Amino acid sequence: MDSKIVGGKVVTASETFRADVGIKNGRIVQLASRIKDKARQTIEAKGCYILPGAIDVHTHLDMPFGGSMTADDFFTGTRAAAFGGTTCLIDFAIQGKGQSLSEALEAWHAKADGKACFDYGFHLAVTDAREEVIDELDQVVKHGVTSFKVFLAYKGSLMIDDGAFFKILRRAKEVGALTMLHAENGEIIDVLVNEALAAGNTEPIYHALTRPEEVESEATARAISLAEMAGAPLYVVHLSCALALEQVKAAREGGLPIMAETCPQYLLLDIKRYLEPDFEGAKYVMSPPLRDRYNWPYLWRGLADGDLQVVSTDHAPFNFKGQKEMGRDNFAAIPNGAPGIENRVALIFNEGVRKNRISLNKMVDLLSTTPAKIFGLAPRKGSVAIGADADLVVFDPRAEMMITAETNHHNMDYTPYEGFKGKGRVVHVLCNGELIVDGDEFLGQAGQGRFIKRNKFSYVA
Amino acid sequence: MDSKIVGGKVVTASETFRADVGIKNGRIVQLASRIKDKARQTIEAKGCYILPGAIDVHTHLDMPFGGSMTADDFFTGTRAAAFGGTTCLIDFAIQGKGQSLSEALEAWHAKADGKACFDYGFHLAVTDAREEVIDELDQVVKHGVTSFKVFLAYKGSLMIDDGAFFKILRRAKEVGALTMLHAENGEIIDVLVNEALAAGNTEPIYHALTRPEEVESEATARAISLAEMAGAPLYVVHLSCALALEQVKAAREGGLPIMAETCPQYLLLDIKRYLEPDFEGAKYVMSPPLRDRYNWPYLWRGLADGDLQVVSTDHAPFNFKGQKEMGRDNFAAIPNGAPGIENRVALIFNEGVRKNRISLNKMVDLLSTTPAKIFGLAPRKGSVAIGADADLVVFDPRAEMMITAETNHHNMDYTPYEGFKGKGRVVHVLCNGELIVDGDEFLGQAGQGRFIKRNKFSYVA
Amino acid sequence: MDSKIVGGKVVTASETFRADVGIKNGRIVQLASRIKDKARQTIEAKGCYILPGAIDVHTHLDMPFGGSMTADDFFTGTRAAAFGGTTCLIDFAIQGKGQSLSEALEAWHAKADGKACFDYGFHLAVTDAREEVIDELDQVVKHGVTSFKVFLAYKGSLMIDDGAFFKILRRAKEVGALTMLHAENGEIIDVLVNEALAAGNTEPIYHALTRPEEVESEATARAISLAEMAGAPLYVVHLSCALALEQVKAAREGGLPIMAETCPQYLLLDIKRYLEPDFEGAKYVMSPPLRDRYNWPYLWRGLADGDLQVVSTDHAPFNFKGQKEMGRDNFAAIPNGAPGIENRVALIFNEGVRKNRISLNKMVDLLSTTPAKIFGLAPRKGSVAIGADADLVVFDPRAEMMITAETNHHNMDYTPYEGFKGKGRVVHVLCNGELIVDGDEFLGQAGQGRFIKRNKFSYVA
Amino acid sequence: MDSKIVGGKVVTASETFRADVGIKNGRIVQLASRIKDKARQTIEAKGCYILPGAIDVHTHLDMPFGGSMTADDFFTGTRAAAFGGTTCLIDFAIQGKGQSLSEALEAWHAKADGKACFDYGFHLAVTDAREEVIDELDQVVKHGVTSFKVFLAYKGSLMIDDGAFFKILRRAKEVGALTMLHAENGEIIDVLVNEALAAGNTEPIYHALTRPEEVESEATARAISLAEMAGAPLYVVHLSCALALEQVKAAREGGLPIMAETCPQYLLLDIKRYLEPDFEGAKYVMSPPLRDRYNWPYLWRGLADGDLQVVSTDHAPFNFKGQKEMGRDNFAAIPNGAPGIENRVALIFNEGVRKNRISLNKMVDLLSTTPAKIFGLAPRKGSVAIGADADLVVFDPRAEMMITAETNHHNMDYTPYEGFKGKGRVVHVLCNGELIVDGDEFLGQAGQGRFIKRNKFSYVA
Repeated sequence: MDSKIVGGKVVTASETFRADVGIKNGRIVQLASRIKDKARQTIEAKGCYILPGAIDVHTHLDMPFGGSMTADDFFTGTRAAAFGGTTCLIDFAIQGKGQSLSEALEAWHAKADGKACFDYGFHLAVTDAREEVIDELDQVVKHGVTSFKVFLAYKGSLMIDDGAFFKILRRAKEVGALTMLHAENGEIIDVLVNEALAAGNTEPIYHALTRPEEVESEATARAISLAEMAGAPLYVVHLSCALALEQVKAAREGGLPIMAETCPQYLLLDIKRYLEPDFEGAKYVMSPPLRDRYNWPYLWRGLADGDLQVVSTDHAPFNFKGQKEMGRDNFAAIPNGAPGIENRVALIFNEGVRKNRISLNKMVDLLSTTPAKIFGLAPRKGSVAIGADADLVVFDPRAEMMITAETNHHNMDYTPYEGFKGKGRVVHVLCNGELIVDGDEFLGQAGQGRFIKRNKFSYVA
Repeated sequence: MDSKIVGGKVVTASETFRADVGIKNGRIVQLASRIKDKARQTIEAKGCYILPGAIDVHTHLDMPFGGSMTADDFFTGTRAAAFGGTTCLIDFAIQGKGQSLSEALEAWHAKADGKACFDYGFHLAVTDAREEVIDELDQVVKHGVTSFKVFLAYKGSLMIDDGAFFKILRRAKEVGALTMLHAENGEIIDVLVNEALAAGNTEPIYHALTRPEEVESEATARAISLAEMAGAPLYVVHLSCALALEQVKAAREGGLPIMAETCPQYLLLDIKRYLEPDFEGAKYVMSPPLRDRYNWPYLWRGLADGDLQVVSTDHAPFNFKGQKEMGRDNFAAIPNGAPGIENRVALIFNEGVRKNRISLNKMVDLLSTTPAKIFGLAPRKGSVAIGADADLVVFDPRAEMMITAETNHHNMDYTPYEGFKGKGRVVHVLCNGELIVDGDEFLGQAGQGRFIKRNKFSYVA
Repeated sequence: MDSKIVGGKVVTASETFRADVGIKNGRIVQLASRIKDKARQTIEAKGCYILPGAIDVHTHLDMPFGGSMTADDFFTGTRAAAFGGTTCLIDFAIQGKGQSLSEALEAWHAKADGKACFDYGFHLAVTDAREEVIDELDQVVKHGVTSFKVFLAYKGSLMIDDGAFFKILRRAKEVGALTMLHAENGEIIDVLVNEALAAGNTEPIYHALTRPEEVESEATARAISLAEMAGAPLYVVHLSCALALEQVKAAREGGLPIMAETCPQYLLLDIKRYLEPDFEGAKYVMSPPLRDRYNWPYLWRGLADGDLQVVSTDHAPFNFKGQKEMGRDNFAAIPNGAPGIENRVALIFNEGVRKNRISLNKMVDLLSTTPAKIFGLAPRKGSVAIGADADLVVFDPRAEMMITAETNHHNMDYTPYEGFKGKGRVVHVLCNGELIVDGDEFLGQAGQGRFIKRNKFSYVA
Repeated sequence: MDSKIVGGKVVTASETFRADVGIKNGRIVQLASRIKDKARQTIEAKGCYILPGAIDVHTHLDMPFGGSMTADDFFTGTRAAAFGGTTCLIDFAIQGKGQSLSEALEAWHAKADGKACFDYGFHLAVTDAREEVIDELDQVVKHGVTSFKVFLAYKGSLMIDDGAFFKILRRAKEVGALTMLHAENGEIIDVLVNEALAAGNTEPIYHALTRPEEVESEATARAISLAEMAGAPLYVVHLSCALALEQVKAAREGGLPIMAETCPQYLLLDIKRYLEPDFEGAKYVMSPPLRDRYNWPYLWRGLADGDLQVVSTDHAPFNFKGQKEMGRDNFAAIPNGAPGIENRVALIFNEGVRKNRISLNKMVDLLSTTPAKIFGLAPRKGSVAIGADADLVVFDPRAEMMITAETNHHNMDYTPYEGFKGKGRVVHVLCNGELIVDGDEFLGQAGQGRFIKRNKFSYVA
């Protein structure tokens, strides 16, 4: 046996039990009341939970956006993620106009190769849906990239039209892939943004006011209709509000294979943040924007009830200095996105589990087990189970915790969760059986992570 | 007194009562148990209902479509309508690409002037929403045209995008007009039609199969979201199915000023019609297409409950010979539309009132009173009330009735209601106090009808 | 011609138009732009509305309750009602335990005979549903009493069980009658009241707290299920809250013949009234109790949309002194009910029509036309129509108005609407063509009103 | 190590993985890729699933009903259950009129002691809710019986009124117990049954026709309202139809802690069974009755979506001969209930998992894990987890399977699932580590099962 974790409580999506965990060749090989076999390495977990490493299915590392690049690359991003208890991510490879999908994939492989500290996969965002591009979907799936993303927002850059979206939904279904959606109506946003700017309304709050909840719920409803006609599954990313959730719920009640994720920022931060003085509202400029807090209980309910299946981060970090500041005179020039890759487990544990909104098992389900199933990573990832990759987190629920930009590990000059306090600390993190986080120390290596060829979509609840 | 109608039962949207009706200077001046005053003309109505003339707010007379023209002009169309109990209509003036709205209005005035046998108004269909066109809406309203129509279908010809639609909704609201919508997703239809044709599926049934209910409900839902964001009222034309009705109902429950009409064809004819042999399915090619009959009870319920406020005809007549036949090898080349202007009262009376789905008063409400209120024709039109225009129909509910193309008066070689039997006959029709239909005889004159400047939108239920 | 009303604007449930009204033998015989015929009496209505007299389908005159009697008898009650623009009412005859239904009717005829100043009918409240009582329903209908009421509240006195209620629903349907329901779960109220009193909670606010919205919505839902099983129509009286309205809406969407009324107090007064000092909260003790004001917009929407068809008063007047005071030490001993018979038109005109929540026509519909149709009084009552009883109100919308107990005409020492201000004054009231209110003067006679045999239930919207 | 199960695939509510299972002192002590340690007993599971033993939370063993006794006692019942893969049950102790709850418990202990072949618990059905009985709830919970059942059906015997139900809901919540409900409106059933019999309608089909879906949905809705007012959780037993499910769904969407189970008979058998000739319809007489099959997909969807959390059997076996036959001339005299204790796993595996309606993990969740959590048996029961009781089933999914009364092991002369075919065979069953079923052989002992004191209710999804 290579390693064993002793004395802790294993938590799965359905059970919590005292057990030691034995690891060999990067896999979990034993769960037992007590493992007496010797191991090269013994990790003490007394009083701690042993969780499957969290999986972040929505990140943007080393991504160009509006003339800038996200502040984390695959090294700093995965390192920060690991400190927060995440051990696998799926990043979005984004097709450029005129590019083939394989070119986009190559570009993203180049970004990740030799840098990622833990295993990763890619989704592929289709932004130029020419016929030959749609023909190419099959090859992409064979390459192990089994999910495609489309944007109904960002008119003039990423946005595609309903016809192209519909073709992708159908073709993705045929080739065994899942279609993911950024759901905002880019046409309406365009009108509203132009008007706001023409009226001299340039502050960050106008980012939110020009992307009201209705542009999201409309696009969500439209996409569900298209998916229904296409007979295809659909996964809505970063769902932010009750109105959009209502659409997903209604579809699911009708038996449609519609799935959705939300992110901690939509559960915990509200629209008033855009009013912070000294342009600090820009820190929260992301799309969809933060919403009124009346949405929060609806989203928590959606997680508890199963209408939302995943919590991801949409980590798209831009520094305040030099990046967010590009939009000082024009909210539309503020790079869209905020960091969060390191804080997800802490936030959901404190706000979800400790406030009794969801059980500890449900947290594991939302952060690890179900994302792995939906995105074709199961049974290798997402579970503390015999044979699974030993991607494990030793989590001490008793420790005090506070989030600050200073102590965060991402490559950023701020965090939207500054000063957030609670309990729970990631003490140890193992990836494929290797200890990469040990207390405050990072033991991982750039390039240690492997590209994971994901299985075709076959999720059944 | 110029005329009196004696012995009949007056029917309004809320009451039914025995009364004589006195007319002077084209207006109703008296309702009485018995009118003893002498009149130049006395019309006997014993055993008959005296109804306000029906108003048809959705017609396409003398309209170009796909290289052809609708078969009725303002003379033959209004004449046929009058024989069926209709005494006022609102036709769609349609902006051509590059045209100003005033040019479109001029063109339609030229079509109607000197031809219409009863009073009429225009809606204006905006198909090229340039900024200067949106600026022009105000002028159009001042001209007495207080409703605008947009198409989300017919990609490449009539369709406009969501941004333009949104601007029209807001501007129309500001200038006191109502926005009307043809709700089908033209993008999806385009994909499906091209695929069907590429696969050699050219028969009329493919018209229906390439425009499934979901393209209508999607566009309806989208439009409601846009109207909500715009803070504007919206009127959905020719709603054809339960899925779309659900969207309207949900919006109305939320207090939004969303209105909708359906048409007799969607209440009475079903999708199997497209399978009639010898290309006769082409007779029913219209958009939206005929639906499965499970929708019928939902639509009737919508009328009874007030979720649907109007029954119009969408009279868009193309002859089978020479017109519908243009699409023998390609369903997409079949001119879209079917006749119905003469048959609406007969169909709703028999299928609605006589089958107890709605009351006789409700029929009057759906065909006359509420259309007049919504479209700014009230209080002059739509009611048997003192001071109202004497647009009246003497209707004998005891007479046998059968619809055939042969006995219909429109300029057509078929009717989709061929052989439909029941009770009820329009015996006399008066427009502005003049008798224009007397039994089988037409007494009206081309040009007798006047263009009506309609009031701004101010409907409250 | 006996009388004519000249210069006013006639308002019906569907139209508003300038017309003179001619009256003969107690009936409306003419509506005309101008009535030149001489009349014994001419009533000037310039600048005023001519409305059909309001009908109050929910009153409790001369009714015993908890050892007291309501403060108005059929004289003072109808007189006060007339001053407020009401010209017809239907009062509840209430069966005593052991009584036959005919005995109950006799008792109520004795109360009304020689006292009522305008026409009236009776509902019959069945409180002791023995088999022979159910057999008697048919006779009651033949007597012209075509609606029965049951109570699911007031355990131990008026309440009947589900089985009896179900039998009444079915039998009423068979004999052409409508079943009306007081919807509160008396079992739960009984538990809560006993507990409150045992805990020493005796103040008026506990009346509301022991009858929460859920006891009403539960009973409403239950009754709808029973009506559905019975295949019978149902009319829910004094619906007070959104939760109960949701039940009615859902049923109506499903096509069930479920109807409901609300009352001004539930639209305009809220639960905080129970906290008025010096025991004055007792003035508002009625069942259901006043609710939180979040319900108000839902109820107004229900009226506008047609889910609620009627506004009645539930006039059940008990004086503060000597009557309400009986419950100083025990909220359960406060007689249930409050006055309102005189103020309904004023309240709905100001809060509904003037605030644009409903149209003026809709007000007429809710107060006159639809109550008359539902309860078998049409076409004689409820309309300004040729042949209808000349029960008419001349209403001046320009006059200032303020409600006070002092100026009210009912036999009461308070009004819950004290100090309510607005516009609109009832200037003249005619019953069967006779002027009974002329400004501040009452010209009516005790006994002038007749018992009206109502038609069987046959309402179709 | 006492025993090990080798070569199989462990299935939990969230994972499926290849692992050997090691057992010591009746508990699971190890899960490993390969267990090399010696064990007294080695069970081969190659190609098989290793499932946590199913838990049946709804059985009626040795129960008096209408003058008869259910045909299985705790020995024959648990033996049959074990052959079907069930290893734990919770039976209903039923309070007799006038009895204390402790007397009821004593009676049921006497039935189970020395007979049960595996572990069991009790619910307590309260049928005589005197004040002192409600005071006794606390003691019952301390005894380890943490769920109470009430009946809204069976008027005159088991039924309690709404007030008593409400008190139990509140008291149960206070003392940490869950209230369970038989949801049918006994008042309406009573009316319908008496009428059917009076009309000479005595055949089994009238059992279903006198208990329509609405009596169930009504009682379900009512109970939810009461639970909401009580602030208490509620568990609806044997939910049989879409109408009732709608009530549960709406409550859950509103965030209420409402749970519900269904049973295989409601998923797989329909109302036409009552028409089987020669009185064989009596075999299916149970309450609620079998429903139209349109309900089936709704119930399956409810299971998949989480609106229904449990599948139990409601095993209430009465033989056709001598028992069901008691009602030959009167359907109301047919003992209510049918057998099913042995067939649940087979039915859900074939109809649920193999038809892709639910995943294999979801089956485990519905039959084992969630019932254990809801009813306070977790973490000892319901899971294949370290430290849990070694209640395990080795299940061969490849084996052919057919259900017949002949091969079933319960004490019955029929099964409602006669001839049902599929795949999957329970090969071995262990209870607390002891092999009690080995192929066709029963190795268990009467009395081997222990009474389990269950934890208080604390379920969070």
